[in-house]
Amino acid sequence: MKPQTLQQLADHVSGEVIGDPDVLIESVSTLHAAGQGQITFLSNKKYLNALQDTKASAVLVAQECEANTNLIVAKDPYYALQQITVLIHGFRKNKPVGISKKANVSETAELGEGCNVCDFVTISDNVKVGKNCYFYPGVFIGPDTTIGDDCILYPNAVVFEDCVIGDRVIIQPNASVGQDGFGFSTHNGAHHKIPQIGRVILEDDVEIGSNAAIERGTLDDTIIGKGCKIGDQVAIGHGTVVGPHCLMVPQVGVSGSTEIGQYCVFGGQVGVAGHLKVGDMVRVGAQSGVTGNLESGKTYLGSPAIEANTAKRSMVMIPHLPELKKKIKRLEKKLEKLTADK
Amino acid sequence: MKPQTLQQLADHVSGEVIGDPDVLIESVSTLHAAGQGQITFLSNKKYLNALQDTKASAVLVAQECEANTNLIVAKDPYYALQQITVLIHGFRKNKPVGISKKANVSETAELGEGCNVCDFVTISDNVKVGKNCYFYPGVFIGPDTTIGDDCILYPNAVVFEDCVIGDRVIIQPNASVGQDGFGFSTHNGAHHKIPQIGRVILEDDVEIGSNAAIERGTLDDTIIGKGCKIGDQVAIGHGTVVGPHCLMVPQVGVSGSTEIGQYCVFGGQVGVAGHLKVGDMVRVGAQSGVTGNLESGKTYLGSPAIEANTAKRSMVMIPHLPELKKKIKRLEKKLEKLTADK
Amino acid sequence: MKPQTLQQLADHVSGEVIGDPDVLIESVSTLHAAGQGQITFLSNKKYLNALQDTKASAVLVAQECEANTNLIVAKDPYYALQQITVLIHGFRKNKPVGISKKANVSETAELGEGCNVCDFVTISDNVKVGKNCYFYPGVFIGPDTTIGDDCILYPNAVVFEDCVIGDRVIIQPNASVGQDGFGFSTHNGAHHKIPQIGRVILEDDVEIGSNAAIERGTLDDTIIGKGCKIGDQVAIGHGTVVGPHCLMVPQVGVSGSTEIGQYCVFGGQVGVAGHLKVGDMVRVGAQSGVTGNLESGKTYLGSPAIEANTAKRSMVMIPHLPELKKKIKRLEKKLEKLTADK
Repeated sequence: MKPQTLQQLADHVSGEVIGDPDVLIESVSTLHAAGQGQITFLSNKKYLNALQDTKASAVLVAQECEANTNLIVAKDPYYALQQITVLIHGFRKNKPVGISKKANVSETAELGEGCNVCDFVTISDNVKVGKNCYFYPGVFIGPDTTIGDDCILYPNAVVFEDCVIGDRVIIQPNASVGQDGFGFSTHNGAHHKIPQIGRVILEDDVEIGSNAAIERGTLDDTIIGKGCKIGDQVAIGHGTVVGPHCLMVPQVGVSGSTEIGQYCVFGGQVGVAGHLKVGDMVRVGAQSGVTGNLESGKTYLGSPAIEANTAKRSMVMIPHLPELKKKIKRLEKKLEKLTADK
Repeated sequence: MKPQTLQQLADHVSGEVIGDPDVLIESVSTLHAAGQGQITFLSNKKYLNALQDTKASAVLVAQECEANTNLIVAKDPYYALQQITVLIHGFRKNKPVGISKKANVSETAELGEGCNVCDFVTISDNVKVGKNCYFYPGVFIGPDTTIGDDCILYPNAVVFEDCVIGDRVIIQPNASVGQDGFGFSTHNGAHHKIPQIGRVILEDDVEIGSNAAIERGTLDDTIIGKGCKIGDQVAIGHGTVVGPHCLMVPQVGVSGSTEIGQYCVFGGQVGVAGHLKVGDMVRVGAQSGVTGNLESGKTYLGSPAIEANTAKRSMVMIPHLPELKKKIKRLEKKLEKLTADK
Repeated sequence: MKPQTLQQLADHVSGEVIGDPDVLIESVSTLHAAGQGQITFLSNKKYLNALQDTKASAVLVAQECEANTNLIVAKDPYYALQQITVLIHGFRKNKPVGISKKANVSETAELGEGCNVCDFVTISDNVKVGKNCYFYPGVFIGPDTTIGDDCILYPNAVVFEDCVIGDRVIIQPNASVGQDGFGFSTHNGAHHKIPQIGRVILEDDVEIGSNAAIERGTLDDTIIGKGCKIGDQVAIGHGTVVGPHCLMVPQVGVSGSTEIGQYCVFGGQVGVAGHLKVGDMVRVGAQSGVTGNLESGKTYLGSPAIEANTAKRSMVMIPHLPELKKKIKRLEKKLEKLTADK
């Protein structure tokens, strides 16, 4: 908690104060809950009326508007909110513990300066870790894996052997990275396990959600591109490549050997079949099922997923199907009568 | 295993014996598998015939009916079954271990009487725990979290800092509670992590399923109301509020900032978008996708979810679509012919 | 890495060399990435052209075909690939550690010869383990559970009390086996927990995916039949019985008390309601929702799931619904005009 004047905050986000530049801001809150000493933001024009009676000391907005409080006008208020929340509240403080004697760190592992290894962590042979990484209790790192600088692995996160983790990667609790892919050869009715000799590569600034499962590749590597944010309980199949800066909302599942471009956004519970190609900047609506290749820049929806506009027009029809059926029946009768009348 | 006479069991559930009150009951089983010394229950009238040849020593039923064995007539046979199963079999006995020396319990943590902390548990600074809680191996509790009385945290369950856990809360293995929400501000193509300063509050009598993921709020708290039962692999987004006594079947996903009323029931794999309002006593069928607000007392189905009756009428139409298309084509031809004939 | 001549590999898979039998093969790779000293396979005829310019030293194929490299013709090339990958690369080598002093192994537990128990593992009272099992860090085994020979439990896998695990069973990281089922009796608005007295039985050669959740039965046992391969994040409800040799792709969810036959294949994110019967050799397409019994040998698709052929014919119609509606409107107008004209 470091209180800041509104002017200081505006300067920090390259915004402009409308109102009292000297009001002190101590914390960030929601439009609904914010009170004195708090700043909030207008996420959506439909809440514009709430600015008339907010008790917040200041509101971040995209353009000047009527309000009963102070404003910071910033080009991208949600990004300004992010910057201000970091400035005032900061990120989680991970308690410095050094290398715990209750951890199991292999003698052949190398850890950079400033690393913290909590109790009950396992760091296997020949692991290489950069600077300032933090390993929470119960973390397991398999042999020969390399990890960059400033990574955080939360409790019980598991990373298998031979994986490559970039800088500033965050792995949330109970996530599994690099376990065997779902690869079996079915012969005479039995499913024979194929050794999974590919790796997992998590590039810089990737975040993996809690209880997510990122399989290692069968022969190729599974790759999550830099800046990707992968939600809770997402499953990524063996050998799938996700391009940089994609967002995958919780419970998405992508089968193996699929190639996904950059800046894609997949809504919750989306499923993607294996061996597909998805272009860049593709958006897929929640619960969609992708069964074919997707073109760059387009938005898809439905199961099977089709272009969103077509899908929406069709989906609104579904509740009217019984009515359509009735109409057809009526037409048939009328026509029959008309034909008979002739 | 404490054998009871049928009369003792009937008294325990305020039911009435039809048959031999002195028969001894040693365990509970299913209608199909029950044999001598066992009691079972009739869950559904469609199994009524099975009462003619069951080998069970007794059956719990809602009203008197023909059977070749003894009956207990109870108003709510399934609840009676629960009471009798608790009486005869009881819940899991957690082995008393005291506070293990192989656990890491902070000196500033406070634990009430009768708590058990197994090996490899981490209880961080300033954690406050009530009486008679049980922490299985691999559990992690972050700093400043408070936990009530009689809670059970199963192996590798993780609870982050500043959370508030009520009394009699159960957290199943590998569940994650209070990790960062999926909150990013996208600016110039990069996704900037927003500090997640809200908490998770699990009220009294909540149960969280295995591998479930309950995100902490971005600015607001995520709240699971008292008596809620949350299934395996359920994901609850940041800042979502679930009212008391809701049931969420495994693999449900609810996005952030949604408000759900009390006594709602969500079927398996239901997805709910963010920033919505769901009323009280709402039922949502399995695999439905909720994209708008839902009214109290109603039942919904489909993706997007609509009222269940409408949805069902429409869903049964879908297999008939090719036929409808043919009918339309036939009508068009006939009509064309008719017009040409004139 | 044990280099082999092509002839040795062909002999190993009962295949036939076309080309140089003496070329040395050092590793296995994909058709796309394979280079000198590598063998790959033709998975699909649509990649036949790639055989003209592959840099692989050899390719596994089902029948002789034109290629610019050496071939092994094998009846089942994917199975041959599996055998060769095992021969050359082998499975993960689990480091011999014996019984770690940092593990917690009960004095009443019995472990067979050749078992390895890593740090931070808990093996509870009266557990019986066969030979050559490997327990990675953070594994928890509850009291009275029995485990066969040659099993591998990966980090933080959890198995509860009274379960029965066969031979050669693999449990991936962060999976939960034998936790309480989602079983509650709702009475006067409160959900009363029913003691879950059934067990989980994993038969021989079962593999359970990472972050999967296999609930114990309420009264019956939950059974996963021999040879079943269960993907990441699959949820199996209490008392469900899965027959031998089924494949369940990641994120499948099966509710409780359902009986599934043998050799079934469920695609990703399939949901199956409770108390159903599914025959043998049933295939269910990804994201389908099974709400009724399914017949042996058939393929199903859709939510609710119907026979796949019907489902496909109907699904392709959905994008054309707005068009159908227009056609009906047009017909109505024409017919009205025609009637008026008379």
